[in-house]
Amino acid sequence: MPVLDKISSPRDLRALSEDELTQLAAEIRDLLIRTVATNTGHLGPNLGVVELTLAVHRVFDSPRDKVVFDTGHQSYVHKLVTGRAASFDTLRREGGLSGYPSQAESEHDLVENSHASTALSYADGLAKAYAVRGEDRHVVAVIGDGALTGGMAWEALNNIAIQHGSRLVIVVNDNGRSYTPTIGGLANALTSLRTNPRYETLLEQVKKRLNAVPGVGPAAYDALHAMKKGLKDALAPQGLFEDLGLKYVGPVDGHDRAAMEHALSQAKRFGGPVIVHAITRKGFGYDPAERHEADQFHAPGPFDVQTGTEKPKGPIWTDHFAEHIVRIGERRPDVVAITAAMMHPVGLDRFQARFPERTFDVGIAEQHAATSAAGLAMGGLHPVFAVYATFLNRAFDQVLMDVALHRCGVTFVLDRSGVTGDDGASHNGMWDMSLLQLVPGLRMAAPRDVTRMQELLDEAVEVADAPTVVRFPKGPPPEDIEAIDRVGGCDVLVREGARDVLVVAVGSMAGVGVDVASRLTAQGVGVTVVDPRWVKPVDPALVELARHHRLVVTIEDNGRVGGVGAVLLQTLADAKVSTPVRVHGIPQEFLEHAKRGAILEQIGLTASAIALDVLHEVAGEAGLDGPDAADPRTLLDADGTR
Amino acid sequence: MPVLDKISSPRDLRALSEDELTQLAAEIRDLLIRTVATNTGHLGPNLGVVELTLAVHRVFDSPRDKVVFDTGHQSYVHKLVTGRAASFDTLRREGGLSGYPSQAESEHDLVENSHASTALSYADGLAKAYAVRGEDRHVVAVIGDGALTGGMAWEALNNIAIQHGSRLVIVVNDNGRSYTPTIGGLANALTSLRTNPRYETLLEQVKKRLNAVPGVGPAAYDALHAMKKGLKDALAPQGLFEDLGLKYVGPVDGHDRAAMEHALSQAKRFGGPVIVHAITRKGFGYDPAERHEADQFHAPGPFDVQTGTEKPKGPIWTDHFAEHIVRIGERRPDVVAITAAMMHPVGLDRFQARFPERTFDVGIAEQHAATSAAGLAMGGLHPVFAVYATFLNRAFDQVLMDVALHRCGVTFVLDRSGVTGDDGASHNGMWDMSLLQLVPGLRMAAPRDVTRMQELLDEAVEVADAPTVVRFPKGPPPEDIEAIDRVGGCDVLVREGARDVLVVAVGSMAGVGVDVASRLTAQGVGVTVVDPRWVKPVDPALVELARHHRLVVTIEDNGRVGGVGAVLLQTLADAKVSTPVRVHGIPQEFLEHAKRGAILEQIGLTASAIALDVLHEVAGEAGLDGPDAADPRTLLDADGTR
Repeated sequence: MPVLDKISSPRDLRALSEDELTQLAAEIRDLLIRTVATNTGHLGPNLGVVELTLAVHRVFDSPRDKVVFDTGHQSYVHKLVTGRAASFDTLRREGGLSGYPSQAESEHDLVENSHASTALSYADGLAKAYAVRGEDRHVVAVIGDGALTGGMAWEALNNIAIQHGSRLVIVVNDNGRSYTPTIGGLANALTSLRTNPRYETLLEQVKKRLNAVPGVGPAAYDALHAMKKGLKDALAPQGLFEDLGLKYVGPVDGHDRAAMEHALSQAKRFGGPVIVHAITRKGFGYDPAERHEADQFHAPGPFDVQTGTEKPKGPIWTDHFAEHIVRIGERRPDVVAITAAMMHPVGLDRFQARFPERTFDVGIAEQHAATSAAGLAMGGLHPVFAVYATFLNRAFDQVLMDVALHRCGVTFVLDRSGVTGDDGASHNGMWDMSLLQLVPGLRMAAPRDVTRMQELLDEAVEVADAPTVVRFPKGPPPEDIEAIDRVGGCDVLVREGARDVLVVAVGSMAGVGVDVASRLTAQGVGVTVVDPRWVKPVDPALVELARHHRLVVTIEDNGRVGGVGAVLLQTLADAKVSTPVRVHGIPQEFLEHAKRGAILEQIGLTASAIALDVLHEVAGEAGLDGPDAADPRTLLDADGTR
Repeated sequence: MPVLDKISSPRDLRALSEDELTQLAAEIRDLLIRTVATNTGHLGPNLGVVELTLAVHRVFDSPRDKVVFDTGHQSYVHKLVTGRAASFDTLRREGGLSGYPSQAESEHDLVENSHASTALSYADGLAKAYAVRGEDRHVVAVIGDGALTGGMAWEALNNIAIQHGSRLVIVVNDNGRSYTPTIGGLANALTSLRTNPRYETLLEQVKKRLNAVPGVGPAAYDALHAMKKGLKDALAPQGLFEDLGLKYVGPVDGHDRAAMEHALSQAKRFGGPVIVHAITRKGFGYDPAERHEADQFHAPGPFDVQTGTEKPKGPIWTDHFAEHIVRIGERRPDVVAITAAMMHPVGLDRFQARFPERTFDVGIAEQHAATSAAGLAMGGLHPVFAVYATFLNRAFDQVLMDVALHRCGVTFVLDRSGVTGDDGASHNGMWDMSLLQLVPGLRMAAPRDVTRMQELLDEAVEVADAPTVVRFPKGPPPEDIEAIDRVGGCDVLVREGARDVLVVAVGSMAGVGVDVASRLTAQGVGVTVVDPRWVKPVDPALVELARHHRLVVTIEDNGRVGGVGAVLLQTLADAKVSTPVRVHGIPQEFLEHAKRGAILEQIGLTASAIALDVLHEVAGEAGLDGPDAADPRTLLDADGTR
């Protein structure tokens, strides 16, 4: 019987023998590898925290004690030992387990947001709450060295350091990497802690003393045990953390479970905030991951378990950006590139290989990325900051007050915009086209295909006196969709029949717009479909087009509130154009994880649903030429589905 | 002739004798005190950087070298020595000098944003740009110890540390305070640097060595000079900064100009990033400021130069909040308060005095404030985070992903919302009611008077499963405006004549709404004025009211794009209510500094301008009962102004 089958809660871990614990770690790794190989997900980070997680759950008493995982994608092991092993095959599937902690799944889960560097702030709040309420609980925050480069983590450390009686244990999971090796002064400081000769000297001294004493007492035995387990120091304050006033235990070999438990027990007993510095290896225990140079299988696509070979996949939007930004860099020596610890995922690795001195990885530090970009622009360069759309939220104030207020020519490239799906609520890039509407002077483009992405990127980097944004979705791009005309700055994609319905199809929704048109024209409704290309500011041509149609339908892969459709509606109201506007976009809610296509179906962001909606509208509007009391069922697909 | 009259550019400073420089510092202090006493502005911070600023401008060559002031309110001395002494009497007046650096004013100014902790990021970008372009310029960032508690500063330090050849000098202006004493582990670390016994030992050793050597060479002389000038260490790497890999000079007495110049010259020669740690006193050289316990005249109202007595002023919104939050705290032991380094300015000092163990100052760390609030809520408390509206921008992602996603009961109190005026573009709280529309589940209230503020605050802290927001403006509140009826959750303030115009007057604009109504009813136009109280979510009663009027006019002290009016417009479009909506708010632009009243006039956010607009509309709309071809001039005020 597998050991894992005996574990329905973390308490069951305490009854296990050493051999069973070793066996359990092996079973967990096997299950992680097999599951992620088919379901996809985060592999390297979870392989790296197997022993660390077991140790945390043997030393602390969840859910009474609270365990907060930073970023959350390394919580799979935690899920397996908190009663979710049997359902682990549903990982990241619609209705199945989330790839992140989820309060709905388990009382052991707390923080669902996957944006980095937050765990210490939650933990500070929790620990303060328990102090105010007089509750004797421990709070454990598990945070990677990469996440410590984020400013929030610093803000939290600065506060935690003065909560002297706080029962807060910070486990720094130091694998030297976020996606890629962690950068900056902090990373160098951690390295020096790892290799500090002071530890070696201390160990030598303890050994000598032990040899000199004939009867070895319990204290000396403890010291020896600590040495054996690789715990090189006992509550010795250290460097950076010492300067802030934080106690420090470590470094500890994070793959030596017993050593981890010893360190955590010491930290638990201390009665104040303590940092436990665990050294781990991303991908530990699975050769193909350990050997994987780029990111130790951080989050691979489907792969073969035996060989670790990833299933080949076609190029995605990111690859096309990666190629084109190099071309731009070749002709524009003033163009420099910035990434916030995601060189490969945002496609800047080729640019870096070609122009190393013009590429900057700033760590998980979107705020600094934006404001240092403003500085770069003030210094005469044109920075391109490529980032996942959802993470730009972190830098809203900097885009507004540092880049836009100073009229700096900075280009933001937003990858993974719109519904991303699998990774749940906090990964969907559904905020950017609303958020950035607020920024005076900023120009924003949403390309519909690769050719337009190249064109719009070329145009964006030409703007020297304002921020520009180019946003595109996750996954493979569609075939190019050619325009039949240009009106103002808008591409006309379809112009059929009377000027009944104007479909404004934004970026990735262009194909849906064209599909809507074909469904409507089949019913005798006249349709014009335009792709505005630049969605901010609103093209005056769009206002005139709207004025001369009888219904405007906007479609965007972005939150409905305050987005492209909403701003067009407001612009039309200001211009006293009374054509009704129907705004189609993502409902302003946190979306459950599922495949992108399934979510778009759920929220009605499909050609069939939108066409049906328009036909109802047309049927209801007196005087609009259209099908006679159109039967909406004629719009159903041939197979009867919508 | 005053020495200041000879200074038209920083270069003129270099020709001055020691006596003239001492005289100049005195003249500058005198002018600062006299000007701020009448014009208002930031006094304490500027009195503290007189010698520091003179030293920076004597050692570096602005504008070739770039000087970036963090927060910018300590740039008055910089303004005086860069050609703006003669116009200093226009400080903060409409059309006059800005209270912050301004590119339009001077080629010596660069960063206009007053939000804290940004200077190091700009400086990093500038230094990288000069490295890429091969330009041999220095970049000097002047940043307070308070601003170092902000996460952005950490992100920047982490990056600057690895720019080994960077000609970047960071002057830490350490006065131990932001508004109030700087908190956290960092502050303690700075204190320990100031008082490190290692320095004393080093000095003793150098002295002994000098005494032992008969012929004192240039190197020894340098060392002696450094000692005399209070420079206690020479490029000795130190603690926190050393751990990050940054060179450190200091601590230096920031009021000893020669010592500062010596330290800055060393830093300039070093050829890599250096921190110069200057110890200053806020309010230095002006007794009433130095003696002022709360904040050393950080930004006083008008005061008497001789005595330092501030002119008495009536209570402002903040004072009423300060009183009421204590009342709430008394009946609700689970309510705790958070400030980001602004205990007094946001009115939490009384709460702190009453409930010290339930009050948390987190430093200039809005991100941490929001996420630790989420943690506090998860731990069973109800946190109230009081913050200036414009600074909440910094925590957008945390409000969204940490508070709202987890359905935490956290109340955000936004002071200084709307047009604040004097402090320029980056202080206006004109973003919050648009930004927060994007946050699922969040509820937002805008009280029109003190009674409503108390009511809405009471309601807000009762919400346990979602974030709530209460926002109010700067300055004194109006007299209470009583409702004549309640429809849904909306207060009806005026109901006169036919259902022609529905005025939706948000928060501080209620008085304007009532005034608009009286101007319209005088012209025979029927008006209903409602205050929605809770502006998010949209009250269904508001939709029904709109459906039964012929024109909707919204008035808000917030950016027009995506604000309350825009969301009402979108809600009406969704509900297929075709009543036209005219949205009145702040144009989505960065506003020049001026008095609040003057700005509201400029942007047409006054009763006369709005009433005029409505009358034009009414006159233009066929079929709407109203004045026959109303002559808009009849709406002018009695004195002929609008």
